[in-house]
Amino acid sequence: MIFYVNTTTNFPNDWTQEKLSDMLAQETAAAIELMKRGVLLRIDRVVGRGGNISLWETASLEALDETLQSLPLAPYLKFNVTPLMKHRVQIAYEKETAKTGF
Amino acid sequence: MIFYVNTTTNFPNDWTQEKLSDMLAQETAAAIELMKRGVLLRIDRVVGRGGNISLWETASLEALDETLQSLPLAPYLKFNVTPLMKHRVQIAYEKETAKTGF
Amino acid sequence: MIFYVNTTTNFPNDWTQEKLSDMLAQETAAAIELMKRGVLLRIDRVVGRGGNISLWETASLEALDETLQSLPLAPYLKFNVTPLMKHRVQIAYEKETAKTGF
Amino acid sequence: MIFYVNTTTNFPNDWTQEKLSDMLAQETAAAIELMKRGVLLRIDRVVGRGGNISLWETASLEALDETLQSLPLAPYLKFNVTPLMKHRVQIAYEKETAKTGF
Amino acid sequence: MIFYVNTTTNFPNDWTQEKLSDMLAQETAAAIELMKRGVLLRIDRVVGRGGNISLWETASLEALDETLQSLPLAPYLKFNVTPLMKHRVQIAYEKETAKTGF
Amino acid sequence: MIFYVNTTTNFPNDWTQEKLSDMLAQETAAAIELMKRGVLLRIDRVVGRGGNISLWETASLEALDETLQSLPLAPYLKFNVTPLMKHRVQIAYEKETAKTGF
Amino acid sequence: MIFYVNTTTNFPNDWTQEKLSDMLAQETAAAIELMKRGVLLRIDRVVGRGGNISLWETASLEALDETLQSLPLAPYLKFNVTPLMKHRVQIAYEKETAKTGF
Amino acid sequence: MIFYVNTTTNFPNDWTQEKLSDMLAQETAAAIELMKRGVLLRIDRVVGRGGNISLWETASLEALDETLQSLPLAPYLKFNVTPLMKHRVQIAYEKETAKTGF
Amino acid sequence: MIFYVNTTTNFPNDWTQEKLSDMLAQETAAAIELMKRGVLLRIDRVVGRGGNISLWETASLEALDETLQSLPLAPYLKFNVTPLMKHRVQIAYEKETAKTGF
Amino acid sequence: MIFYVNTTTNFPNDWTQEKLSDMLAQETAAAIELMKRGVLLRIDRVVGRGGNISLWETASLEALDETLQSLPLAPYLKFNVTPLMKHRVQIAYEKETAKTGF
Repeated sequence: MIFYVNTTTNFPNDWTQEKLSDMLAQETAAAIELMKRGVLLRIDRVVGRGGNISLWETASLEALDETLQSLPLAPYLKFNVTPLMKHRVQIAYEKETAKTGF
Repeated sequence: MIFYVNTTTNFPNDWTQEKLSDMLAQETAAAIELMKRGVLLRIDRVVGRGGNISLWETASLEALDETLQSLPLAPYLKFNVTPLMKHRVQIAYEKETAKTGF
Repeated sequence: MIFYVNTTTNFPNDWTQEKLSDMLAQETAAAIELMKRGVLLRIDRVVGRGGNISLWETASLEALDETLQSLPLAPYLKFNVTPLMKHRVQIAYEKETAKTGF
Repeated sequence: MIFYVNTTTNFPNDWTQEKLSDMLAQETAAAIELMKRGVLLRIDRVVGRGGNISLWETASLEALDETLQSLPLAPYLKFNVTPLMKHRVQIAYEKETAKTGF
Repeated sequence: MIFYVNTTTNFPNDWTQEKLSDMLAQETAAAIELMKRGVLLRIDRVVGRGGNISLWETASLEALDETLQSLPLAPYLKFNVTPLMKHRVQIAYEKETAKTGF
Repeated sequence: MIFYVNTTTNFPNDWTQEKLSDMLAQETAAAIELMKRGVLLRIDRVVGRGGNISLWETASLEALDETLQSLPLAPYLKFNVTPLMKHRVQIAYEKETAKTGF
Repeated sequence: MIFYVNTTTNFPNDWTQEKLSDMLAQETAAAIELMKRGVLLRIDRVVGRGGNISLWETASLEALDETLQSLPLAPYLKFNVTPLMKHRVQIAYEKETAKTGF
Repeated sequence: MIFYVNTTTNFPNDWTQEKLSDMLAQETAAAIELMKRGVLLRIDRVVGRGGNISLWETASLEALDETLQSLPLAPYLKFNVTPLMKHRVQIAYEKETAKTGF
Repeated sequence: MIFYVNTTTNFPNDWTQEKLSDMLAQETAAAIELMKRGVLLRIDRVVGRGGNISLWETASLEALDETLQSLPLAPYLKFNVTPLMKHRVQIAYEKETAKTGF
Repeated sequence: MIFYVNTTTNFPNDWTQEKLSDMLAQETAAAIELMKRGVLLRIDRVVGRGGNISLWETASLEALDETLQSLPLAPYLKFNVTPLMKHRVQIAYEKETAKTGF
């Protein structure tokens, strides 16, 4: 099942640059691992802004929640989850071309 | 350049079921063609709702606009465009795995 | 998986009282059937208002969407879907009492 | 009488992990007790978010308010209460199956 | 139990002045009857606007809903219901003066 | 003239429980006095929430403002004032029954 | 007592230019009369927009409502009323200069 | 040119009562001077609230901005500026009575 | 004086394609003339949407309003006007380079 | 490609006047440099408010983001980016007059 997640960030003001860099490095490593496992399908940033929008695929709602909460920066992130379904165009395209969307 | 497009639909009330089916068939064909050309990267529907959310890649803002306006249903669609950039996680993942996001 | 669905209604103005009664009867029959099958868990109305709020359990996002779209009144309903998870209190209660929430 | 309560949390920033765990344990115990007494009917969490949505049954508005204010975490919770009525579908289902919604 | 109800009106455009006057007369008669029965406690209009705000007292949520839906103009009214409790000041005043609020 | 006042509270975080109790006692005493003088007609609390909604009667806008600002807790309250007029139903009821609304 | 009124217009689509001109002429005449009587103190238009913002002085809330409803275009206007008081600066200025604000 | 300015205040929490009184005295003196010069035409307070609404007349946008920024309390004020034009009623009234609005 | 104008369009549904083309041609001719006269400084369209955002320079608020209302499509346009001032960066740049912004 | 950027500022409260002046001087120098390079096309301030609105031209979304993030005050600014296209009026004007918009 596919989900669209709009994430906004709220980091503590008193983090040093080192702390921030370290946390972002941990977050990046964890997220790349989730991409390799096919859980995080795609992640982009809105031009000029912090936060990000991403597409996820998990087997259940509980799995999505558990994954999001497992991120190192989770305590400082706010996730807005929208459940998605492949559009008829996407389905027809994948059938016709034998490709998948990701 | 990648764009997130949130599309809402507003079809005339007086369309017959045939007219609607015909228009949707034209729209689907045009959209599949855009997927094959790598312009429309992905299209999904929000569960329980009409309209859709999609990712597009075009060489310019003008090209995106021209593409959206060329859709057979364009006069009945409202597009909300958000300019995106690959997130550092996506960039690191693609470098490490030599895969692209789509 | 459990979903909270907030439904608002938008019936055509030109329906006769008979048409409306007939449609509501069809809708009620279909909804009761879904309750018997354990798909629709609970449905309530906000005091003083039309529309309703309901809890659903389906095996996938696609199944939820298909179910909602299958309702006789679906073309005149707007569904707002929120994906839910049992709260730790609910889980602890069910474990302790060996009862399920519904 | 049944109420839908949308609860958001706002815990003090200076609570230690122990304080937080202790408070959550007290809250869980109190909430389970209310479930056993049939006052709290159901409680769920929105995927990816804190806070929760719940259904309550009390004999009066005053009883609902008193119950909510009695929760150990009440000073840190914001309750949004919506009065509900069983939907005609729920009533018909319960009559036909001799089951109650909870 | 006491409720605050914010009512907005949406009358059909094609009513004649006679139809409107007749409906308002029916509504007024029904509302006065509810005032005499102590169900409608108070009704005011916001200066310069249509619609009204009112206070109601009923024994249950179902009774409130039934009462509101029984109004002759109900199909053209939108009710927004807020459940109330007497404020500690009101309670102390009534105790001290042996008067009730209405 | 009658006014509907929606009051929200914003107390300093560093008040002790004693300070808060003392302030609330002063506020209650002042409000009861205003009720006895027929200036504060009615005051209720929204179930599950702080703040309150109230009805006031004063001879002028300046008198209402002066009264609200005279409350011991005024510096910590935000008042939203809506000017009201008796609804035709209220007027007809009072004429017919020779009772006043309060 | 002084009121700030934000007025938005909603004229029927099927009015001829003659009907519109005639209605506006009636409205202008009535409004000028109210200005001469010192009830309408000032009326302006927001640049680029229809509707207007105005200041009124009446002896009561009922008088303001009656005045607004007496306007020839009243059925097609929506009034948003804000009760005002002279600011301490205005009061000090009028005392010092023996001028009134209007 | 005439402008409607909606001003909200945001004073530092740590000002002493003396500091606040002193600042307000400076502000009042400056504002009265602007009234005498015909720049500030009128200033009112919304009943029950801080902040104010005012009418200004300046020869240019830059002059308005400079005037607002010159106020002693400017760093603690938020100005929302709406450009106005005399309404046709105001113009007709002034022509007919040879009076100006202020 | 410079103004930012956000324009949204609301054309009648029953215009033929010829009528629409003719009206747009008239609008374009009038707007080009205003650009040549230095009144309309710049006009852009938001990608994927109708309506436009534009910058205008006029000697007064009345002149701006008169210009906007003179547009052939004015009855079908809604203008939202924001008064602007050159930013200190723009002023410094123009001084340093002896260029003007347009 | 052209972008409209609405920028709001959020400077730390504990900056000294010297720190603020120094930061603004750095920001101005950087912005003027971007104007000379034709990246920042125009920048204005809304009358009576902080923050600004500006037009930018960059070759890609990434270039716009990089430019915005390179500003000395970027950590204290919030950018809202809207992708633009020249309006048909602007295009026709530039063709007819052989001038460009900036």
